[in-house]
Amino acid sequence: MSRKAGAFDAAFAADLTRLFAWRRDVRRFRTDPVNPQLLDDCLSAAELAPSVGNSQPWRWVEVQSAPARQAVRDSFAACNDDALRGYAGEQAELYAQLKLEGLDAAPVQLAVFCDRETQQGAGLGRRTMPEMLDYSTVTAVHTFWLAARARGLGVGWVSILDPATVHAALAVPETWHLVAYLCAGWPQEEHLDPELERHGWQPRSASTDRLLKR
Amino acid sequence: MSRKAGAFDAAFAADLTRLFAWRRDVRRFRTDPVNPQLLDDCLSAAELAPSVGNSQPWRWVEVQSAPARQAVRDSFAACNDDALRGYAGEQAELYAQLKLEGLDAAPVQLAVFCDRETQQGAGLGRRTMPEMLDYSTVTAVHTFWLAARARGLGVGWVSILDPATVHAALAVPETWHLVAYLCAGWPQEEHLDPELERHGWQPRSASTDRLLKR
Repeated sequence: MSRKAGAFDAAFAADLTRLFAWRRDVRRFRTDPVNPQLLDDCLSAAELAPSVGNSQPWRWVEVQSAPARQAVRDSFAACNDDALRGYAGEQAELYAQLKLEGLDAAPVQLAVFCDRETQQGAGLGRRTMPEMLDYSTVTAVHTFWLAARARGLGVGWVSILDPATVHAALAVPETWHLVAYLCAGWPQEEHLDPELERHGWQPRSASTDRLLKR
Repeated sequence: MSRKAGAFDAAFAADLTRLFAWRRDVRRFRTDPVNPQLLDDCLSAAELAPSVGNSQPWRWVEVQSAPARQAVRDSFAACNDDALRGYAGEQAELYAQLKLEGLDAAPVQLAVFCDRETQQGAGLGRRTMPEMLDYSTVTAVHTFWLAARARGLGVGWVSILDPATVHAALAVPETWHLVAYLCAGWPQEEHLDPELERHGWQPRSASTDRLLKR
């Protein structure tokens, strides 16, 4: 093993921090297509994500058909209406104005599931914390997101959905659990601050006292 | 907003892929201390992780005291014994030989919790998928891990623990849910392949047909 192969310089670490900062949740996409090779590069990167027991439980579904996409849009609309009814007054007005998804425009849409019954990894590391399988899928989603942003692609994670509806619309195996629904494509806009901070929903917390000691 | 600020070149994207590949789960650490500023840089990076509704639900606890560390080691020992009894024959022999944690040597140990009752984000995006709070904490853990590896630090995620025991030993608020227990420090060794692959537990899956279409 070459020592250099796994070494990174300070310039890379600084650029990595810049990537973390620019990795935004994108909701406004251009409709022009994404080169399939570019998408494949991002999916290949995601396979390098950590997984409990090396179980690699992530299952990716590209949602392309009109009926499947419509089912997801309908689910969002219903869930978002319900959510709006949970707020009142100024908060409801603000919520109604937020753009929370890019389902109409995003050329690439990916449903990411966790196979909770996978035999891979033979159960190692998930006996007392079975949620580790879902968490492994989350790290794959996050890896995809960072790989995409490094290539200029925007990604948005939509969670205002009914998982059962999405599962049924995509006709995937019963043991698969929906972890994320991702919109991806070329972003119409670039922002360094989170959309929800910019529009007054939720600022960043102060980072003082962030580390308890025990 | 400068267009250049959020742009990354092909060399960075290639280095990022190299980082994903070298981000290994480390279980063998040198005992020399980690500069607190370096740790702080990694924690600062983790605050840039995505979170549902910008809820930032991650709560970090540095586990330093001898009794707290002993409680975690004891929990691992008990859970690992239970796990071993779940395997038989050659698989049990192989399991018994695996090194699954670095709790004895790692100079830095962090318990990462999710505050499932946080008011931050006002519930946005987690009405139908409440697990999004835990997932947001996972992306913070993964961000920390990548930032650490870019600086040469190794990180290992220990999940063979009883979350209730760790929670009690660290005396954290009731609403906090254990997501990850991390060992960190300077690695004794560097490998490009996962430990569990190298020792014959679980190879990587073939990546053919990895993308279903719907």
